[in-house]
Amino acid sequence: MRIMVLGADGYIGWPLWHFLASRGHEVCAIDSLVKRHWRVKLKIGAFGRSAEEKTPYVLMVGERGQLWDALNHFQPEAIIHLAEQPSAPLSMGSLELARVTQLQNIDSTLTLMWDVRRFSELKGWMPHIIKLGSMGEYGTPNIPIEEGWLEVEHKGHRDRVLYPKKPGSFYHASKVADSVNLEFGCRAWGLRVTDLNQGVVWGTGTEECPFEDPARATFWHYDELFGTVVNRFVAQAAVGSTLSVYGGGRQQRGFIHLQDSLRCIEIAALNPAREGEFRVFNQLSETLSIREVSNKFPNVNRYIENPRVEDEEHLYRVAYSALPKLGFDNPRKLTCRAADDMVSQLQQSPDLGSHKAAITCAPEVKWRP
Amino acid sequence: MRIMVLGADGYIGWPLWHFLASRGHEVCAIDSLVKRHWRVKLKIGAFGRSAEEKTPYVLMVGERGQLWDALNHFQPEAIIHLAEQPSAPLSMGSLELARVTQLQNIDSTLTLMWDVRRFSELKGWMPHIIKLGSMGEYGTPNIPIEEGWLEVEHKGHRDRVLYPKKPGSFYHASKVADSVNLEFGCRAWGLRVTDLNQGVVWGTGTEECPFEDPARATFWHYDELFGTVVNRFVAQAAVGSTLSVYGGGRQQRGFIHLQDSLRCIEIAALNPAREGEFRVFNQLSETLSIREVSNKFPNVNRYIENPRVEDEEHLYRVAYSALPKLGFDNPRKLTCRAADDMVSQLQQSPDLGSHKAAITCAPEVKWRP
Repeated sequence: MRIMVLGADGYIGWPLWHFLASRGHEVCAIDSLVKRHWRVKLKIGAFGRSAEEKTPYVLMVGERGQLWDALNHFQPEAIIHLAEQPSAPLSMGSLELARVTQLQNIDSTLTLMWDVRRFSELKGWMPHIIKLGSMGEYGTPNIPIEEGWLEVEHKGHRDRVLYPKKPGSFYHASKVADSVNLEFGCRAWGLRVTDLNQGVVWGTGTEECPFEDPARATFWHYDELFGTVVNRFVAQAAVGSTLSVYGGGRQQRGFIHLQDSLRCIEIAALNPAREGEFRVFNQLSETLSIREVSNKFPNVNRYIENPRVEDEEHLYRVAYSALPKLGFDNPRKLTCRAADDMVSQLQQSPDLGSHKAAITCAPEVKWRP
Repeated sequence: MRIMVLGADGYIGWPLWHFLASRGHEVCAIDSLVKRHWRVKLKIGAFGRSAEEKTPYVLMVGERGQLWDALNHFQPEAIIHLAEQPSAPLSMGSLELARVTQLQNIDSTLTLMWDVRRFSELKGWMPHIIKLGSMGEYGTPNIPIEEGWLEVEHKGHRDRVLYPKKPGSFYHASKVADSVNLEFGCRAWGLRVTDLNQGVVWGTGTEECPFEDPARATFWHYDELFGTVVNRFVAQAAVGSTLSVYGGGRQQRGFIHLQDSLRCIEIAALNPAREGEFRVFNQLSETLSIREVSNKFPNVNRYIENPRVEDEEHLYRVAYSALPKLGFDNPRKLTCRAADDMVSQLQQSPDLGSHKAAITCAPEVKWRP
């Protein structure tokens, strides 16, 4: 299958296109490298391959014409769109960072939609857009979370409506805006869209891009901005630190291993949405509270004031059966053994010492002033 | 009351600040004048005062620092935010126009939110944000439309959720994105927000800004981009043309007279939202189908292919009791007499002849290629 990956330099995007290539797909890997720029600008360290290693094809999705040229040349059957600023805390840091997050993220999806529409007019067929969203778009409502749509009965009438969203940051709100645009694009133009609302991704590497391989390892973050909770705990455990749990740690989230994220994305590509269909899959393998996550590690918890605005006690009954129905099985679970293996990998890294000070520093971005 | 009006040069904004001033409020009127730029660029004519007349204070909300300076100096108790690109068809014209609409609209609300947060930290009190939205954010679901929130029972659980949105254009989607951001801002920062989901506004003028007054009349559009359906029909009737009804004309919409829109906005300002409250009012006086609107005029309908993607047969049971409960009463209805009066006003305008060719031309922007 001809698959275009937008955001091919990221934590997921990089191993994704190596995975897809190893599975026999023809892959066009694209990235603006803006996250490398953020790392330099914000002085953020990361494990993984050196920045001088092989990069994907570089273009800015939002710069008019560049994406169009790539689409027209490569003619993808599926386009996997990960090319967005992925950090919730970064989006809460300042007006300027909130603007960058929302305007660039929304612009990238909008540009992709118009270019795909133009492509379909020209070629007579419609590529399938697979868009990475987040479980954080839903927030933590007091009703079960369905896969993107909700059957509602109200005052004697029934409808299937978009599942109501309550995002927890300007980053998450940008993803909600993308979803609203994409659903409209399906109705108005017959776009074919799969919106993957993904849980927290964890893992140090994949089969194709193992952590130890200096040429292949994905950029691996442990900082408060680009590091997600499991990976942050791995880094803290590796240096023998306490684990910084936000608030009381009873918040529940969905989780999925990096390799399984890639498998789910391929499954979505191989089973495309129909023309005009806005399809939403919740992409996770299990739900856990932050305390349950920290308990996979032998280290002691340090409960710090929650920098975020989020419910700590809430219902979290999440549907995620669509991908299993299409063949996603035997997901990796976050076990003590899995945690231990990751900690060992970090401890064997010659770079660990140079990251120690950054790993143990407290989060700086607070949702509230 | 100290009230800041953002978008004070527009169809609603201009008579709004004159109305508020006449009611004894202290008003700070702000506009970027970007709509004047659009009129020139897109060669769109309008009735109303000459462009050289008195203008509001000019600044760009999205240009960092400018809004902040104004806020800090004027210290408004209420901020009425109309400073967004208001045309659905314009947003569907091209990728570039969709981008301009979404990025500028979202940016203006985002900037306002952060500046108000900063202001409240500095001053210790929180101005009330009144944001103009659109009934078009809801689309035409098969359940009754409530005022912004929906009580849902699902699988034995209950919650009050944001009413699911299904916008009909990139313009409407930009308003949905604004609402999502504002609701988050109420939760995260304690913003006080009233989101006014307004129906189609009609009317040639107001008491303070009558159509005939060359110094005071609001800019009045009849074109496919900035003209709304009632005003377009008024112009077509005034030149003795047929009325161009999109599709079968059975689409239903909410409607409100311009003067009543101003009254509702003042009521919202005088009865502010609480800190942390995201309050939504549906701002309309009646619901009518497009055919019912056209039947207020003696002219013959011309049914043209619907340039939009919209349901033409649908439920439209809309709640709009919040503003009446706060004192909004005796709204003007779109009667045959009201239609006739407006047509007469246009026919007495010395400018009518120069607009005739533009009034009778067919719409050019189509939602679908």
